[in-house]
This record gives sequence, C-alpha cells and structure tokens, in this order.
Amino acid sequence: MFSAQTYQDRRATLQNNVANGILLFLGNIENPVNFEHNPYYFRQDSTYLYYWGIQEPRIAAIIDIDENKHIVFGDELSIDDIVWMGRQETLKEKCLKSGVQEVLPYTELSQYILKALASGRKIHYLPPYQSSNKIVLADLLGIKIAELQPSVEMIKAIVKQRSIKEAQEIVQIEQAVNTSNEMHLLAMRIAKPGIKEYEIANAIQYLAANKECQMSYPPIVTINGGILHNHYRLNTLKDGDLFLNDSGAETAMGYAGDLTRTFPVSNTFSTKQKEMYEVVLNAFNKAQHLLKPGTKFKDIHLKASQHLVEGLIDLGLMKGNPEEAVQNHAHTLFFQCGLGHQMGLDVHDMEDLEEQYVGYTEEEPKDTRTFGLKSLRLGKSLESGFVVTVEPGIYMIPELIDIWQSENKNADFINYDKVNEYRNFGGIRVEDDFLITDDSYRLLGNGLIKSVDEIENYRAEHLA
Amino acid sequence: MFSAQTYQDRRATLQNNVANGILLFLGNIENPVNFEHNPYYFRQDSTYLYYWGIQEPRIAAIIDIDENKHIVFGDELSIDDIVWMGRQETLKEKCLKSGVQEVLPYTELSQYILKALASGRKIHYLPPYQSSNKIVLADLLGIKIAELQPSVEMIKAIVKQRSIKEAQEIVQIEQAVNTSNEMHLLAMRIAKPGIKEYEIANAIQYLAANKECQMSYPPIVTINGGILHNHYRLNTLKDGDLFLNDSGAETAMGYAGDLTRTFPVSNTFSTKQKEMYEVVLNAFNKAQHLLKPGTKFKDIHLKASQHLVEGLIDLGLMKGNPEEAVQNHAHTLFFQCGLGHQMGLDVHDMEDLEEQYVGYTEEEPKDTRTFGLKSLRLGKSLESGFVVTVEPGIYMIPELIDIWQSENKNADFINYDKVNEYRNFGGIRVEDDFLITDDSYRLLGNGLIKSVDEIENYRAEHLA
Repeated sequence: MFSAQTYQDRRATLQNNVANGILLFLGNIENPVNFEHNPYYFRQDSTYLYYWGIQEPRIAAIIDIDENKHIVFGDELSIDDIVWMGRQETLKEKCLKSGVQEVLPYTELSQYILKALASGRKIHYLPPYQSSNKIVLADLLGIKIAELQPSVEMIKAIVKQRSIKEAQEIVQIEQAVNTSNEMHLLAMRIAKPGIKEYEIANAIQYLAANKECQMSYPPIVTINGGILHNHYRLNTLKDGDLFLNDSGAETAMGYAGDLTRTFPVSNTFSTKQKEMYEVVLNAFNKAQHLLKPGTKFKDIHLKASQHLVEGLIDLGLMKGNPEEAVQNHAHTLFFQCGLGHQMGLDVHDMEDLEEQYVGYTEEEPKDTRTFGLKSLRLGKSLESGFVVTVEPGIYMIPELIDIWQSENKNADFINYDKVNEYRNFGGIRVEDDFLITDDSYRLLGNGLIKSVDEIENYRAEHLA
Repeated sequence: MFSAQTYQDRRATLQNNVANGILLFLGNIENPVNFEHNPYYFRQDSTYLYYWGIQEPRIAAIIDIDENKHIVFGDELSIDDIVWMGRQETLKEKCLKSGVQEVLPYTELSQYILKALASGRKIHYLPPYQSSNKIVLADLLGIKIAELQPSVEMIKAIVKQRSIKEAQEIVQIEQAVNTSNEMHLLAMRIAKPGIKEYEIANAIQYLAANKECQMSYPPIVTINGGILHNHYRLNTLKDGDLFLNDSGAETAMGYAGDLTRTFPVSNTFSTKQKEMYEVVLNAFNKAQHLLKPGTKFKDIHLKASQHLVEGLIDLGLMKGNPEEAVQNHAHTLFFQCGLGHQMGLDVHDMEDLEEQYVGYTEEEPKDTRTFGLKSLRLGKSLESGFVVTVEPGIYMIPELIDIWQSENKNADFINYDKVNEYRNFGGIRVEDDFLITDDSYRLLGNGLIKSVDEIENYRAEHLA
C-alpha cells in the first residue's frame, strides 16, 4: 500500500470533484472456478485499489459527500474463520493504513443506502463488470440489473484523476515494465524450433510469479501473430516462423506492464521478415517521437499508419499517395487495430469505466463505425502524467484479405497480387510503454532491445 | 473429449432417471478479472463437461425429456471474430464430437424455455455457483435470483451417475494424480531453508502447466500447516519447520488430483516431528485398509480419529479411553476436519450440487452442528466406482487450544499442559486418492513416497 495520506488525498480530491450525494465503491469477490469454495486468484477492483488500497474480497466503501464521511463496509474474521484461516491483520487495521477510521459490518451498507435513497439523495456508482457486483448493486438499489445507471459524474471525476499518474505510481509501473522486460528476454532465450507456445507462456509466467507478479493480461505468445487476439498456445515453433510475444507483468499492488516483441524462431530474420519488421519499427519510432502533451493520440495513430503505408509501398504491397491511403482507411487491411491505450492499474487503464470517457471527449467522441478507428481505445489529447502504450503492427489476415479483394476494396492503394504472396506471413507488433512528460515523453523501464541487430545478436549469444 | 458415444450414453442414462420436463445445463463464461475483456482462464462447468464435453464459454444445452431432444445453444464466430481470433473449429463441429446434431443460437434458449414454461412444463436446473449463471437463470425463468429453486430430482440423478467413475475417467484421474505426484517430488527436492513458500507454489504450478494442467485448487504450501485453509505464501522456510504441501493437478479434460505430504525443511524429522508424523501415518494406513463398498465413510472417519487419539495418548497429549474420546469429539481439538471427500471433475467432486446429496443420504443426513463432523464432506456408504481422498491430520491451532482450555473442554481426554508444549508445532496431513473397487480399494497413480525413511532418503539424495 501507499501511505494513508495518499488515499486520503485521493479521496478528498474526488470528493471535491463531485457535487453531492454518496460515492459507492464495490470491491471484487473471490470468483468461483467450478464450485463456490474453489476460487480463482483474488484481484481487487482497480478503482477500489486506487482510493482505498485494501486487497480484501467482499468489502465496499462509501464517500458520503454531503456528510463528509468515509466508511469501509466489511466483516472481520470470526473465531471460526481464524481456526481455519489463521490470525490475520484485521480489516480495522487495514483501514487505518488507508486513513479510514470508520468500519461497519457489510450488512449495514444496505441500510445506509436505503436511508439515503429514502431521503432522495443521489447514489453514484460505477459500471459493474463482474456479475457478482451487478447483483449486489441491483439488490442495494432495489432495481433490476438492466436498470442500473452508472454515474457519469463519478466516472468523469475518476478518469480525470486516475489518468494523471503520481510519481509513486510511475515507480510501480516501471517495476511492472522491468519484470515484463525480463519476461521478454527469457522468451528470446528459449524460443527455438521444437518448443511449444505454451511452454514459453509458462516460463515467462513462472519468472513473473517468482517476483510476486501476476500476468497483467492473458499473454499472446504465438507463431500466428496475424491473429490479433490469439490465446491458442498448442503450436510447436519451427524454423521460419515469426514469434510474437505480447505479455506483461502486474505488480502485487496491481500496476501493469504491457510489451510486445516479434522475432524469428530461426537464428536470423529472413529478408522478407526483416523488411516487414523494419516497416513496423520505423512507424514505432516515428510515433514515439510524436508523444507530447496537447497532441491528439488519434493524430499520432494516423501518422503511424501513414508510416506503415509508406513502408508497404516500398515493399510493393501498397501503392498511391500514403496520406490518401490513410484517409481511405486502406492501411486497415494490415493495421486493423489501434496504436495504443492508457495503462496503469489496468493494462487497458479504466476500460471498465467506458472508453468514451477514458479515451475520448464529448467534443470528439469515438468513431465507433469505421473499421480500424473503432478499435482505437485512445483518441484524445495527451496530458502530462498520462501513461500510454505505443504498438503499431502489420497483420496478414487471410480471411480479411479475401473479403477485401472480393469487394475490390481500396484497389487504388492495395496490390492484391503482392499481398497474397504475404497472406500466410503472420503478424508483427512492437510495443513499449511511455510516460507523457511536461514537454515530451519518457520510455518506462530500463528499455528492451528491439532492432533487428539487437535481437539477432542477443539470441546468437544467449539462445539456450 | 471422450467419444461421442460416451456423451450420448451419459445423457441417455440421465434422461431415463428423470421423469419429465426439460433438463437445463449452463456452461460457464470467461470471468472478468479487472475489466470485461481481461478474463481469468476459462474453466467449463463440470456437469456440462460430463454430459456435453464442450470446452467453450457462453453455451448452454437442454435435454428435453418429453420431446426426446438434445440441443446445444451457442453462437458461431462471426467474420469479425475470425478476423480477431482466427479460424477455429466451429461449435457445430464440436457438438458433433459430443453426438449432438441440433445447435441453435444462444438467444433461442430463452424462447425455448418461455414456451415450455407457458405450457406448464417443468424446467430442471442445478444450483448456480457463478454469479453470471445466477443472472442468466433468473432471466430465463423470469424470477428473482432469490427465488431460484434447483431441481433435487436432477441433482440426485446426476450425483448418482457422476459418483461412479468410468474406466476412461479413472485413466484421466490417474493422469492428474501422477502429475500431482511429480509436483510433490519437485517440492521435496527444492524445499530448503531460505526459499519462500510461493517459490515452491510457483515451481509446482510451472511443472503442471508444462503438462497442460491447471491446479485443481489453490495449492496450500506452507510452514504453518496448522492453519487449515492457508493461502498466505510469503513466509521463508527455515530449519526446524515442517512444510505442508497440499496440491494437485487438473488435466486438460478437467479431472483432478489431490495430494498432501508433510516433511521437515531440515534434512531429517526432529524426534517430536517424527513421532507426530507416525501418528498421522498410522491413522492414514489404517483408514486406507477400511475402504470398501458398503462401508460408511463416516465410520472410517471415526476409526481414523480413534487411531489418531491412540497415538496422541502414547505421546501424552491425550488420555483416557480412545473410543470414548472420539464419542465425545475430543479428537477435534487436533483433527478439526473430515477424513476425505469424493474427487473427479471437481477436486471436491460435485460440491456445487450440495453436500447433502453428494456425501449423505436422506436417511442419514449430515451432522451440521457438531464441530468436526460438520466439516466431513462424505459420510455415506462407499460404492464400487467411487473415487475418494483419505487425508487424516493433526493440527495445532493456538486459538482453538486457548478456547477449549478456557472452557476446560474434554479435560478427561486432553492433557492441556502437554498440548501447550506443542501449541506452535504446526500441522501434519497425509493424503492420497483411492478408487473403491468391487471388494476393496486401489491407490490411484503410481504411488508417492510417504514414510519417514522414504522422505528423508529421497531428500538426502535429491535436495537441490
């Protein structure tokens, strides 16, 4: 945990940014795997962690703005619990570390809310993503789950606050990134013909676990990098494959890292692989240098897309004017997704608070219809204190190529004959994590090799 | 998956054991960790696995007894999904492997149920343990979650069937047990002063993962074995500690292993540790030999308890007549829990179907009030084909000792002075998995060392 003062300050700021009513926070539960008492590992809700810091299942909390009260609701262990689970730090003790004096039994939350509702007060709450909290919320408010209406005022105030990372949060994120760096180096040392994808996933997870880290998301470790959300891990690596590793660690306090590297299973990149990799790496480098406060991330996304197009024109897969190609979304045959997203206590930071509020503004809402842009999680202007990923890529998706070609889509910009030579090429992504500083940006963590030479040399030296 | 015939036969048997109506099966979902699209690993519901075998989130199924229809409800990937997730085996293809011809879109389940309800037909369903399925069920039936009434008829028919393991299931369970054996041997090789509990947990999990196994439950790997449900893993092992490892693997098909071994962190058991270990091991051996069809597991539990008492009398911690001590539940100061449980697709097999139906009978229901017996999951007569664990233990719980002593509880049987000399001793448990055969029992798996000599010799030879 951070200091009690940290949590008190954060709550005070939030309280000042919402006019009135009660701010309700629900912690997560231990979710059952195959029966109630066989749970997945516990992960506290990120917003709960941010304002209260307490890693304990089945607790809630309120900030009563009108009465200036901060209360945690939860139950102490009974003597029966202590017999089975051992003596532990009490909830009261944990709350003191969060600067909270008042702790009430969980059942009293319902009465508190009912009383407030009866006197016509506003109850602010966030969109629930775990089903258990959907049920809790509907019960507390006496309405149906379908009738839940999260508080936009509360969401906006939280997004504003959580988006600007404190120095101590940056320390945590860099810790996550550095562990992620080690995971990626390990993968580079062990990925060779004959090994299975899941063995690499297991090895990097094991490394992280020994540093008390969970994975911040299910790792994508695949020889089919063209499949964007690929969690199939039973393939065997073989000479000639490109291996894509998108994985990151999460610190014990909940902060995420998120990195991607792509490299050949053989000792060196083939010419085709190298050429394509350089296209992605160039777009990455160009995009990185555009990071600074005041610049719209959507513009950086489009610039990066243009650099990808330029590279693809050089390789003969595209043609025409790069700027026009991007205006016509022709690049989305190869780069179907977004350039990046915010990162913090969640790998897609605050994704549960709705993209519209996290990544966009009311003046410039998300384009939810255009292929490509509808997958861009962050569009708005960067601010000092944001942490973002930059992750351009080129993905060859045979199904998509066939659809576009059958429609002769963007034929002015795409050389379908050449593209079809690459249809089974796979995918390449390069991704790092950055802090937006007062006037530009800073790479988070110690830095992870990414040039063709660096990767080939490292593997030549260290391949197990 | 097993053969299509297997699933067809299982469903046919179930259908014959329920009079009429519709049997409704809900699969599990991918449960969100910290936002909707960041899920825990997927684990299909065990009953769904048993009757349908399909490992896919967000599917359901029905056996319409009245109309003799078997239908799976679920959605095929859209072209959008295929672009992001790659081309995969279709749901239709998976269903054929399960011997199911009819596959309908998920949304049609609701109409099917509504129509059946409208014509007054009975909808049988099981107790939901994941919140998502509580919501789905309440929605389907148009009632509140609190009003859900699982079908006792369906539960009983399923328990009857799933309790008797098929030969091919035993093969799966032995695979799980053998991987668990390897996990335990690995722990014996690496547990030494200076290592952290979680490092051992991580190592055994890594071993299992490389055999495509999950943990069948959160491993208990602890130097505080006296704490029964101990998931704190930050302690450092030191000379003189007893190390308790309760962990098991789950095969890719979902079958569990569940083993416990306890051994000294030092090279050898101390005299005190050895004496106490022999008491537990003796009770384990005696209990094992009592396993056979027709014998009540509760009686074996009580016999094992009596053997524990005899040993504790020899060591001076207890006194008086062992049989009377057990009748008075005096042993529960040391052995607070049950001797074992059924095991199969769940480590506590069918625990979601309610203990009363899984471990007991209407004639002899569970004793839910007596300390000790209320934690015995299995009481009823064993049958050929059952798979059960046997896991006696002795646990020194300072809080419990203090309570009993302050009440002078069972003072005729307990030497509190001597007990207090052991109050920080910790805990010992020995656990193996057995198949009940036609006339006795068979240890599952290749066998894992458990005598004092075997453990000391193994560690002397292999300690890393």
